[in-house]
Amino acid sequence: MRNIRLDIAYNGKTFSGWQRQAEERTIQKELEDKLSTLLKEKVVVYASGRTDAGVHARNQVVNFKTDNEKIPKLAFLYGLNSILDENIKVNNVLEVNKDFHARKSAIKKTYFYQIYNYEIQSPFYKDFYCWIKEPLDVEKMNIASKYFLGEHDFTSFAASKNSTKTTVRNIYEASWTRDKNFLIFKITGNGFLMKMVRNIVGTLIDIGLGKYESNKVTEIINDKNRKSAGKTAPACGLFLDRVYYEEYY
Amino acid sequence: MRNIRLDIAYNGKTFSGWQRQAEERTIQKELEDKLSTLLKEKVVVYASGRTDAGVHARNQVVNFKTDNEKIPKLAFLYGLNSILDENIKVNNVLEVNKDFHARKSAIKKTYFYQIYNYEIQSPFYKDFYCWIKEPLDVEKMNIASKYFLGEHDFTSFAASKNSTKTTVRNIYEASWTRDKNFLIFKITGNGFLMKMVRNIVGTLIDIGLGKYESNKVTEIINDKNRKSAGKTAPACGLFLDRVYYEEYY
Repeated sequence: MRNIRLDIAYNGKTFSGWQRQAEERTIQKELEDKLSTLLKEKVVVYASGRTDAGVHARNQVVNFKTDNEKIPKLAFLYGLNSILDENIKVNNVLEVNKDFHARKSAIKKTYFYQIYNYEIQSPFYKDFYCWIKEPLDVEKMNIASKYFLGEHDFTSFAASKNSTKTTVRNIYEASWTRDKNFLIFKITGNGFLMKMVRNIVGTLIDIGLGKYESNKVTEIINDKNRKSAGKTAPACGLFLDRVYYEEYY
Repeated sequence: MRNIRLDIAYNGKTFSGWQRQAEERTIQKELEDKLSTLLKEKVVVYASGRTDAGVHARNQVVNFKTDNEKIPKLAFLYGLNSILDENIKVNNVLEVNKDFHARKSAIKKTYFYQIYNYEIQSPFYKDFYCWIKEPLDVEKMNIASKYFLGEHDFTSFAASKNSTKTTVRNIYEASWTRDKNFLIFKITGNGFLMKMVRNIVGTLIDIGLGKYESNKVTEIINDKNRKSAGKTAPACGLFLDRVYYEEYY
């Protein structure tokens, strides 16, 4: 039994997210279908986590098991890339311990959120940046971001249909950088609830627009009520950037 | 009679180029249709030059005339942007002298050509970069680019169906810069023949791949034969970057 880890990138724009669902065009379906073609057997692929419709990944980690001992490792890089939809690419392949599981073994994740902040929308950035017309106060957004650091109950920032065992997560870094009209938010944590990053960003945008003071974040966290936080920021600006694992796999 | 100059950007991916042609989706058609809606009259728009299907523009310059004295200048920025296809945006509006003509008055143009040079294609750059898998020798491409400088007969680099009066053009700058896997070619000249930039780039790619020596360029120019030059590089990497005019307009 081989356990294969793939590091993949995808442009989420044309997909209904990661998870296989009937006949929808999803990343999981496309990967499983093409791996099945390659291996001539049914393949089930596990990801580090689902990404929603329209969300991108620079490095999503997935794994699958196969009894096929013949296909060389690099066929999962070059062979798979040649038949996969052009919006998904395998960047790396590793043979891992049989107990490695892309989701269960993950210990830390980093997401990026990109904003294009200019009065006129750009025909070039619209697929990868959330467009905010009004000027954003990045300094305020950075002060506010610090309130997310550490262990908190993120109920206020979880999708209302969230069903995880616990809503407590630990955030290790959360900060914005600005380069001219481009704002990038980087957030790393031990895990994220459904829509959590986009709900955090939506709230930080409100703060950047001057709707609330930076310390409003603590109040929202304490409310433990989704309605207290800002709107869910659009999917197109979000990138799953990196998933961390213990070295020994 | 007002003569209005618009500086526009467009993502050429979904268009059959600039020029209006029957029912095809073109930039000219989209602009003329939406300006006609705004002005409630037939509008004819002139561009600094046609761009081919799939080619982008960061700053294409166009102009049109209208007798409508009521519509404020800024309606051609905000009003037009709100009804235009999301792949076209007006960046600037100027009222110009009645003898200004976007094509005839142009004295100089700059194009950029973008290459993503890495063994695995990227799902994020595919619409705006030409993907070259094999490593390119940028130093060689830069030496070769120098042979294009100055006044030459560019017959070898013109589309075979070229029908301009003269095939002589003057190139003021032509050089490559590399930032990790991204190569950018900048070329400025007093004008360009149909497909000329893409044919030059196709030839420089061949040189970067080691198919020819850098000084092959002079031989190709002297041949005055399209067949001597390299393939036409893909449209997706090409951007019309800037059009220059005399100050007095």
